[in-house]
Amino acid sequence: PEVRGIADVDVGAARRLAGEIGVSRVSDDCRELLAAPDIDAVLVCSSTDTHADVVIDAATAGKQIFCEKPLDLDLGRIDAALAAVRRAGVRLMLGFNRRFDPDFRRVRDAVAAGAVGRPELLRITSRDPSPPPAEYVKRSGGMFLDMTIHDFDMARFVMDDEVEEVFVAAANLVDPAIGAAGDVDTAAIVLRFASGAIGTIDNSRRAVYGYDQRIEVFGSAGMVANANRTPHTAVHADASGFHAALPLNFFMERYSEAYAIELAAFVAALRAGTEPPVGGEDGRRAIVIGKAAGMSVKSGRPVRLSEVEATTAATAATGALA
Amino acid sequence: PEVRGIADVDVGAARRLAGEIGVSRVSDDCRELLAAPDIDAVLVCSSTDTHADVVIDAATAGKQIFCEKPLDLDLGRIDAALAAVRRAGVRLMLGFNRRFDPDFRRVRDAVAAGAVGRPELLRITSRDPSPPPAEYVKRSGGMFLDMTIHDFDMARFVMDDEVEEVFVAAANLVDPAIGAAGDVDTAAIVLRFASGAIGTIDNSRRAVYGYDQRIEVFGSAGMVANANRTPHTAVHADASGFHAALPLNFFMERYSEAYAIELAAFVAALRAGTEPPVGGEDGRRAIVIGKAAGMSVKSGRPVRLSEVEATTAATAATGALA
Amino acid sequence: PEVRGIADVDVGAARRLAGEIGVSRVSDDCRELLAAPDIDAVLVCSSTDTHADVVIDAATAGKQIFCEKPLDLDLGRIDAALAAVRRAGVRLMLGFNRRFDPDFRRVRDAVAAGAVGRPELLRITSRDPSPPPAEYVKRSGGMFLDMTIHDFDMARFVMDDEVEEVFVAAANLVDPAIGAAGDVDTAAIVLRFASGAIGTIDNSRRAVYGYDQRIEVFGSAGMVANANRTPHTAVHADASGFHAALPLNFFMERYSEAYAIELAAFVAALRAGTEPPVGGEDGRRAIVIGKAAGMSVKSGRPVRLSEVEATTAATAATGALA
Amino acid sequence: PEVRGIADVDVGAARRLAGEIGVSRVSDDCRELLAAPDIDAVLVCSSTDTHADVVIDAATAGKQIFCEKPLDLDLGRIDAALAAVRRAGVRLMLGFNRRFDPDFRRVRDAVAAGAVGRPELLRITSRDPSPPPAEYVKRSGGMFLDMTIHDFDMARFVMDDEVEEVFVAAANLVDPAIGAAGDVDTAAIVLRFASGAIGTIDNSRRAVYGYDQRIEVFGSAGMVANANRTPHTAVHADASGFHAALPLNFFMERYSEAYAIELAAFVAALRAGTEPPVGGEDGRRAIVIGKAAGMSVKSGRPVRLSEVEATTAATAATGALA
Repeated sequence: PEVRGIADVDVGAARRLAGEIGVSRVSDDCRELLAAPDIDAVLVCSSTDTHADVVIDAATAGKQIFCEKPLDLDLGRIDAALAAVRRAGVRLMLGFNRRFDPDFRRVRDAVAAGAVGRPELLRITSRDPSPPPAEYVKRSGGMFLDMTIHDFDMARFVMDDEVEEVFVAAANLVDPAIGAAGDVDTAAIVLRFASGAIGTIDNSRRAVYGYDQRIEVFGSAGMVANANRTPHTAVHADASGFHAALPLNFFMERYSEAYAIELAAFVAALRAGTEPPVGGEDGRRAIVIGKAAGMSVKSGRPVRLSEVEATTAATAATGALA
Repeated sequence: PEVRGIADVDVGAARRLAGEIGVSRVSDDCRELLAAPDIDAVLVCSSTDTHADVVIDAATAGKQIFCEKPLDLDLGRIDAALAAVRRAGVRLMLGFNRRFDPDFRRVRDAVAAGAVGRPELLRITSRDPSPPPAEYVKRSGGMFLDMTIHDFDMARFVMDDEVEEVFVAAANLVDPAIGAAGDVDTAAIVLRFASGAIGTIDNSRRAVYGYDQRIEVFGSAGMVANANRTPHTAVHADASGFHAALPLNFFMERYSEAYAIELAAFVAALRAGTEPPVGGEDGRRAIVIGKAAGMSVKSGRPVRLSEVEATTAATAATGALA
Repeated sequence: PEVRGIADVDVGAARRLAGEIGVSRVSDDCRELLAAPDIDAVLVCSSTDTHADVVIDAATAGKQIFCEKPLDLDLGRIDAALAAVRRAGVRLMLGFNRRFDPDFRRVRDAVAAGAVGRPELLRITSRDPSPPPAEYVKRSGGMFLDMTIHDFDMARFVMDDEVEEVFVAAANLVDPAIGAAGDVDTAAIVLRFASGAIGTIDNSRRAVYGYDQRIEVFGSAGMVANANRTPHTAVHADASGFHAALPLNFFMERYSEAYAIELAAFVAALRAGTEPPVGGEDGRRAIVIGKAAGMSVKSGRPVRLSEVEATTAATAATGALA
Repeated sequence: PEVRGIADVDVGAARRLAGEIGVSRVSDDCRELLAAPDIDAVLVCSSTDTHADVVIDAATAGKQIFCEKPLDLDLGRIDAALAAVRRAGVRLMLGFNRRFDPDFRRVRDAVAAGAVGRPELLRITSRDPSPPPAEYVKRSGGMFLDMTIHDFDMARFVMDDEVEEVFVAAANLVDPAIGAAGDVDTAAIVLRFASGAIGTIDNSRRAVYGYDQRIEVFGSAGMVANANRTPHTAVHADASGFHAALPLNFFMERYSEAYAIELAAFVAALRAGTEPPVGGEDGRRAIVIGKAAGMSVKSGRPVRLSEVEATTAATAATGALA
């Protein structure tokens, strides 16, 4: 595969990247590139609020599509985008990069191979090294749709199961500005799966020791869990103890290998003419879980995913009436 | 300290133990020993339903008391026992043995010393190697009052904080007989603390790899966590992987050191004339959390501890009227 | 088994210990106790230079004998003691306590069970937390006969093989007073076994992080290795790294369990009427390896154990002539 | 930097690689490329016996040179090549790739920063997953010049010290064909450093659990050690134990990152006009240690590096006379 063009509303940024990787076509309007007949597929990496429109335009132009998560924060717009993709008969892959991390992949493969028997408990620890600016939090849809969404997708992926109910206990402990922006930065989440299995996720926007990304699946025949990756394995012992390295600090270091594998998987699926390994429906479901999480925080009780769908349908109906 | 007598309703069992450790006084009625003027303190290790009565009798007899958890399953009877202890002016220590485990103690000491800053998230994993008979489950008060009660106490201990609300997602996945007896065997529990911190506990009655007892406290300045103890540290590598030992199988192995330290702490407190390190109120609070957990399972929503107290007061009032 | 008497040239020390453990018979002369008909077995824990004489006296008195290592530093005196034991038909167990450490035992059992196939390489790390006084070094026979002797015995034990040749590269890096006393405090030792396998031992009299006691056996089908034991398993993460506990500091902590198992094995062998698990010949062989190590340091070349025996025989012959 | 041409006596192989990476100039004679004025630097990756000639030709042509280890197996030819490089005033970097491995680099940096105080003991474990064909062993100069040479260089690198004496206990335990070819496949090596520190290396040509590459440096103030890298961090627990991944299988996986860093360091040194981080003298010294190791195996005694130099000088003198 070859990069044939780069579009960015900040055309200077597009030019810099194009220069670095030796690409000649640059634009400030992605529709210009979508019109190019020598472009087969597009990577949609723009800001979240543009994803749905770009995906619809790309699908309409007959391009194969890789879109960074989330597809959109609004289920109606997600459904519109998915419908456009279906109508156009193109492929859409959602950028849940962690599915391609070798450690998580190994956990999932072990579960799929029956290494833990029937999965009964899932435990995800997902803590960022430091919080984003409160400004970002406002636009991103909040912690559940921006950060935890990866964990919701991972829960479905490693368990090969669907979430039915979500309960959240959340708090604003890290940065008051995040609270002022109406969001939380610390949470414990309980998931109920269709199979009867139960999962927990714990999130924090600030782990001073770095990016903490661990998964554990426990079942009738055992347990499988990964550990964090470190930049080196050296351990130093002195009179005060044994000292080991911090984890790789954030997603650019932790998931660099995953990003490469992810793109290779997208290309491989296009070449084979098969469905990409993460589809639009996966993107939608993670958003539904995230919305249920938000509703749980507001209501202080567990929320079933069917309630999110019902609310959406009701809103859509109201919208239709208005 | 010297063991001066052993009472057991199964007097044969009392005689066997007395023979092993060289004790001459044996009885099938503990009140006989409670009447002995040369006995200063008693260890109440009988079945749960007798604890409150024996504690009341022992307190009335002026003995110092160590009582295995739980004091009782009924808050009214617990309060009666605690009142008897207070009236008699004797000391009462509750047998939360895990507080004396060197690993958990280290975790708690690190938290108390500020090593994690302000505690924000607690994570307790507590899984038994294999389920008890369903018959036992019926008499024991169920998983929350029999097994998780240790975790509830541990939560208070390591966080040095009070639980205010409990949410439970539980299931009967391990043994149908446990479900038939009206209990659960798998659970994810969310705790809210007075400080605003949040905790999770995950429980299973069956971990095929052995007794899984881990605690992690995460806070504004870091994290502290223990690992399971193993009978040996040897690792074996062959063409299929690296293989390490299972954890110590169950509480008799895992907590053998804790039991010894616990009794020494009881004796030391009596000699120093100070309050024992785990008091009757600690025993009561763990029961209240356990009852809230049960109410959460029944109601499907988070339950505040104040609701348990209100229910108890109402029941007591009804009882007073009757 | 019951302790029936304690003899110590420092009779005050004997009295203090007797008081602690409730023993009434105390003496400043062990021969007094050896004459007692109600004593079946003796534990010889006096200073090294007295071991051979006490063992001979005890054997002559028909007592079963546990003797702390080494039996003696002189092979002629060792042989005399072993002959006395044989003549008397009593059992003699040598106190190589590390054979009873659960971790080393597991390594050895794995090797014996074929888990590593044919053993090819052995690696022992044996480092003390801090050096003994130079005064002690002079009397103890030096590092090889006092400290490394445990590693020499362990090499024979885990490999179930005999050492044939020893090469040592040693130095005085830790404490100049040890060098002034004619000894070394740092060494790398290479062992050649009868089977063709090769082993290394590295020693230091000072590991600032504590007692470092690790063994690794590598063979045609894999590897088995232990790790150091720590007082707790808690790990603390902060912005500077992950921090874990130091090993148990020295032999009293590291091998407390081994000492208890060792004595139980002695008693069990006596009761069963079988050979104790560590015999006089084991004690002798470790000394021969230690002497070969000393000869290697002096000569700067590898030394075969047969050279030690030849030297001893020559000395004995000379002594016989004199 | 840009690859401007590829030469290989197997010109088909050169063409395939050129096609893969988009290079147009291909030759079966490296002298053709050495004559090209638009080529600044060359990577010498041909078979060992051609290294010296190609380096001399490249130096004469004024090219900057990266040469895979070893420069040659003959000290006379190494000296001739180094002299040619000096005369030409070009830079020469030797391909000791392990110096660029992040784990070993961290160990070395910790030692250089004083984290272990004065280094006293070094321990290198270096075991290949499976032996090379005996045919290769014959041409490669044998285990010490082909495999252990990396460890000899690593010893100098992490200790920042020079080896003065080598003792080897070696055996042919893995493959009889290796023995028939006059080589060994299993070894324990003791190094004496100029500082007085002591090191051990253990080697095997076959570790069934994969490539075992560990270093430990122990000193007056502590210890630093690395662990093996694994393809994933997942651990699986079942009723038989805890199971973890094998190490990355061999040098292509283990050192892929190191190779990239190594080449970047070569380019960076050329651009900065500084000496490359591994020079010709480093290549020569590792060979001298390797030859001393071979002499130790033959003679059964420790060999000083000065003996190797004396032998070489004598041979050179004889050669000059002949």
